[in-house]
Amino acid sequence: MTDIEKHQRMANAIRFLAIDAVEKAKSGHPGLPMGAADIATVLFTQFLKFDPTAPDWSDRDRFVLSAGHGSMLLYSLLYLLGYEDFTLDEIKNFRQLGSRTAGHPEYGHGAGIETTTGPLGQGLGNAVGMAIAERLQEERFGKDLVDHYTYVLAGDGCLMEGISQEALTLAGHLKLNKLIVIWDDNGISIDGKVEITDSTDQQARFAASGWNTLSVDGHDPEALAAVIRQAQASDRPTLIAAKTTIGFGAPTKAGSQKAHGSPLGAEEIVGTRDALNWPHEPFDIPSDVLDAWRIAGLRSAHAHKDWQKRFADADAETRAEFDRRYRGDLPATFTQAILDYKKKLADEQPTMATRKASEAVLNVINEVVPETIGGSADLTGSNNTKTPQTVPVTPDDFSGRYIHYGIREHGMAAAMNGMALHGGLIPYSGGFLIFSDYCRPSIRLAALMGQRVIHVMTHDSIGLGEDGPTHQPVEHFAALRAIPNLTFYRPADITETLECWQLSLEDRSGPSVLALTRQNLPSQRKNFEEDNLCAKGAYVLIDCEDSAAVTIFASGSEVEIAVDAHKELTEEGIATRVVSVPSFELFESQSDDYKADIIGDSAVKIAVEAGIRMGWDRFVGNDGLFIGMNGFGASAPYKELYEHFGITKDAVVSAAKEKLAT
Amino acid sequence: MTDIEKHQRMANAIRFLAIDAVEKAKSGHPGLPMGAADIATVLFTQFLKFDPTAPDWSDRDRFVLSAGHGSMLLYSLLYLLGYEDFTLDEIKNFRQLGSRTAGHPEYGHGAGIETTTGPLGQGLGNAVGMAIAERLQEERFGKDLVDHYTYVLAGDGCLMEGISQEALTLAGHLKLNKLIVIWDDNGISIDGKVEITDSTDQQARFAASGWNTLSVDGHDPEALAAVIRQAQASDRPTLIAAKTTIGFGAPTKAGSQKAHGSPLGAEEIVGTRDALNWPHEPFDIPSDVLDAWRIAGLRSAHAHKDWQKRFADADAETRAEFDRRYRGDLPATFTQAILDYKKKLADEQPTMATRKASEAVLNVINEVVPETIGGSADLTGSNNTKTPQTVPVTPDDFSGRYIHYGIREHGMAAAMNGMALHGGLIPYSGGFLIFSDYCRPSIRLAALMGQRVIHVMTHDSIGLGEDGPTHQPVEHFAALRAIPNLTFYRPADITETLECWQLSLEDRSGPSVLALTRQNLPSQRKNFEEDNLCAKGAYVLIDCEDSAAVTIFASGSEVEIAVDAHKELTEEGIATRVVSVPSFELFESQSDDYKADIIGDSAVKIAVEAGIRMGWDRFVGNDGLFIGMNGFGASAPYKELYEHFGITKDAVVSAAKEKLAT
Repeated sequence: MTDIEKHQRMANAIRFLAIDAVEKAKSGHPGLPMGAADIATVLFTQFLKFDPTAPDWSDRDRFVLSAGHGSMLLYSLLYLLGYEDFTLDEIKNFRQLGSRTAGHPEYGHGAGIETTTGPLGQGLGNAVGMAIAERLQEERFGKDLVDHYTYVLAGDGCLMEGISQEALTLAGHLKLNKLIVIWDDNGISIDGKVEITDSTDQQARFAASGWNTLSVDGHDPEALAAVIRQAQASDRPTLIAAKTTIGFGAPTKAGSQKAHGSPLGAEEIVGTRDALNWPHEPFDIPSDVLDAWRIAGLRSAHAHKDWQKRFADADAETRAEFDRRYRGDLPATFTQAILDYKKKLADEQPTMATRKASEAVLNVINEVVPETIGGSADLTGSNNTKTPQTVPVTPDDFSGRYIHYGIREHGMAAAMNGMALHGGLIPYSGGFLIFSDYCRPSIRLAALMGQRVIHVMTHDSIGLGEDGPTHQPVEHFAALRAIPNLTFYRPADITETLECWQLSLEDRSGPSVLALTRQNLPSQRKNFEEDNLCAKGAYVLIDCEDSAAVTIFASGSEVEIAVDAHKELTEEGIATRVVSVPSFELFESQSDDYKADIIGDSAVKIAVEAGIRMGWDRFVGNDGLFIGMNGFGASAPYKELYEHFGITKDAVVSAAKEKLAT
Repeated sequence: MTDIEKHQRMANAIRFLAIDAVEKAKSGHPGLPMGAADIATVLFTQFLKFDPTAPDWSDRDRFVLSAGHGSMLLYSLLYLLGYEDFTLDEIKNFRQLGSRTAGHPEYGHGAGIETTTGPLGQGLGNAVGMAIAERLQEERFGKDLVDHYTYVLAGDGCLMEGISQEALTLAGHLKLNKLIVIWDDNGISIDGKVEITDSTDQQARFAASGWNTLSVDGHDPEALAAVIRQAQASDRPTLIAAKTTIGFGAPTKAGSQKAHGSPLGAEEIVGTRDALNWPHEPFDIPSDVLDAWRIAGLRSAHAHKDWQKRFADADAETRAEFDRRYRGDLPATFTQAILDYKKKLADEQPTMATRKASEAVLNVINEVVPETIGGSADLTGSNNTKTPQTVPVTPDDFSGRYIHYGIREHGMAAAMNGMALHGGLIPYSGGFLIFSDYCRPSIRLAALMGQRVIHVMTHDSIGLGEDGPTHQPVEHFAALRAIPNLTFYRPADITETLECWQLSLEDRSGPSVLALTRQNLPSQRKNFEEDNLCAKGAYVLIDCEDSAAVTIFASGSEVEIAVDAHKELTEEGIATRVVSVPSFELFESQSDDYKADIIGDSAVKIAVEAGIRMGWDRFVGNDGLFIGMNGFGASAPYKELYEHFGITKDAVVSAAKEKLAT
């Protein structure tokens, strides 16, 4: 068997596993695996550094299938290379309930999947974050321990999505030379030829942002190897435009959208077997081909051993710190630092905006947690995400801890996902809450993947004032609370801000959003409490001696209004209590008894929040009172806006009394 | 006064109105108006076709301030040119409650504002839509009636946002040669110099997608005029990179982020008056300068008269049709066509996916409503948005009615906003519901602006099956229902699909989203009803003779489950009724009596929807039952997923009986 024959048979193994799995599932995308099989074969047999027996080896090269619909390409590779999570049975169970081989690659379904992809462009954005993480970690632990590439296979769709521009411009600016993007340039999208919708010269586009660009015949293994070698040697990130034929080998469907997203069908498959000289039964991989793949699976075993030796040679402190960060444990000193600061706050009772409170808290956190990587989408001074510990990263110096992400919310959030997935780092961002809409797809994927990324989102309501309705979140609390496995926090003062930060950092199972104010807020927590009260999601901030006639529920800046209303109602002899609700999600995870107790049985229940009502019926019932927003905000100084929209102490007091009187 | 002196004094009038208004408001962005005043002066005094006395003249040139934070540039222009909505008092009331001069330009606050901007990149996306609309309308009504340019002033932030890539690639592909984007290239963003976050050669980037690119000193009026003339003559869209100094004229803050987003301060203003030789009181525009501007305001009066003459010369039918479409009225035949089709459906009772139902309905609509412009973000065959009437638009032929938007959900939605704002057209899109997240900022702006754009969003739940959780909406119903002034529809069968389409088209006051299934659904509406039942938002689909012990509320595909459960419960002697809930928003707008009647007082209330619970407490109360999703979906054939997640008839029946027994 000549080298080229061997290559072709190995590539065909990918093709037919994809064809057969899609056919069996009666669903899926055979076109990409068939078209990109040559690329994948060259990459995985000659370049990629990985160890199927240790899929989580921290210094492995990362491979991101940004065009996630081609999932069978990845599953085929993982099976052929000997990753134990991906057996032939899993391949046969493609797209079935409970299988590891979901319709799109799902992070966590099996070791070997680096990130969840499918929503186009996200993988590219993740990969930029992974490549940033590699540079950051290399700077911290040295090339002996951290020195790997990040490869991406991206489709036309990935490059058409706007997120791709944010990702590639960030990568180009930061000169992420170990990021290599292979574009599966098959010229086909679902509606037909790409040329019916786009006329972009992608190489020129990438070059305009400082990328090295190369092109190649995506079916020529020698040429592919040559360009990947060139890419590895570049001092800039590289785009390889690999011209391919979608559905390569299919007699009537190759080169057409018909090969993209549905089974080829029995007749076409017969023709494909014929055309590619693959006279084997479905799912049958000849032993010589499987052997060749399994041998390829061993190719980095030596490199891995060498790495283990280097790691063993490192000093004990480095090893411990390296392991701690990659395990995701917080430093031992973390909890005490939080408590010490909480005590200080109980003494000082500062009045400040929660965005400023967050900065003060970050100053404590960043001192004891060296793996945090801060940043902002060009709103550093507004988000207050930068502290003295976090010096900016520059293209030539990754020793810093702060990333000026530019006006790229979506690219930022996707990169943060990649940094978290890479391991060893805890990324946090800065942005305006309104622009959570710009990065929602990436936030959702962080939640789906259970990644610890923390989004600081300031200017969280009409309280931002004059910038007006385009910048005032109204529906965003509800819209973010709606995302499963995302914890949305809206702290009411600096102590709650501290507690919410603590919870965000301690939660390794998913992302957090901290919604913070532009405007000043007084301290509400009068006494030092060792317990993290925000951990309950909702708690009684002010109780009353008698059974409460009125309970006021509020979050964030509106807790101040609730407290003021409580004072007035109490003075009028109406027994009232105040419940602070920093997080709906944490509240829901409490015991039924706790929840019933918090909700209570007051005759009057009022929720106060400068957003829409959606979600608050959980607390006040659908006959309860709600003081908040019914529509978009307006442009004016913020105190006038609160008056204008009737979100005031007086409104709460009147509503309560009116309801009590009925 | 020489020409250059005159120019400078006119430009300085813009600068000082901006400076003074921001100073008075103690809030705002002086830097852009100061930097871009020369560009605006050249554009508005020499090129822009407009008539302040008829701001809505359909053939005016459109000017979009994509960098909306520079709103005082626009307000100053509108005041100086004599737009009556923008008086000096309005300028003095900048950013105050109830003023027309909001923090960012708000469409509808005053005639002369073409679109709401502020969220960066959106204006550029709108402008692409406006330029598409111009070409479409020119093709329909001829150059005599439609022949205008679309100008955009965009900042660095606009060009960094991903949406800009979607917008510019679409414009480049479609060869929108009457779109002229002037990039205010001041090299400054909030965090500092743009070069700390980006290294993109913007001209090369635009050129890579087929744009004409020019560069110019943005403070040189003659050079500016020359490049705008070149741009007008191009056969491609043009990017003019205009090098400017942010905060031009400010002695210490010019050229720095300090000039960007806050008042200059008294001392700096004194220095600026000095530097620019503007010894006038705040808000005082010398009469010669104001006169010069007011004369500029008259510059297209003649062109407008000529246009009126040409319009008067057109045949009566053309005039009537032109006016109808720009008024936004539907054709007189519309209602009957809908009713005729509804009768047919009552006879035929077809079973089909609501995405297919939508296609069938569109076939009726597109036949009688010639101003609809369909499209899809590369999912035409899946969204079923193309009918025989809608031939694709190509770069060389705008006679068609269908736009292959490519994989650009965000660019699509922003362009649709621009098309609707332009007037004369009703744009509708196609996409997967999951990707509403990708275009949410534009959907929100359509809602804020009250624009009639209609989003067809298919594959609306776990019912899409094998593609898995990355493609399965779970929280999206709630997240879209949360957006104010957006109507979210989830029809249960073809008749409801027809009714929801009718409502979407008849609603001129805001956008609509139609969430449609991939999977088949039976007809639920058994009898022909002339009334549009979906107009009530929720209605009794199946009543019971006795007082209902159980009410089942459901939307979309889960209405079938509700109906099946109703059958079984009824057979067991449990009086049950079914309420179909195609739209929460329309339900909320009904009378209190109607709402109370629909919600009723059954002992058991159950909501069934293949999404999260959020929002349903409104119907069932916080002690009511909910059968739906608690988290993300999974990859499997859809019937298995419904079983797996327990969204079944049996689950509804069991839950109802269990609750009845307590």
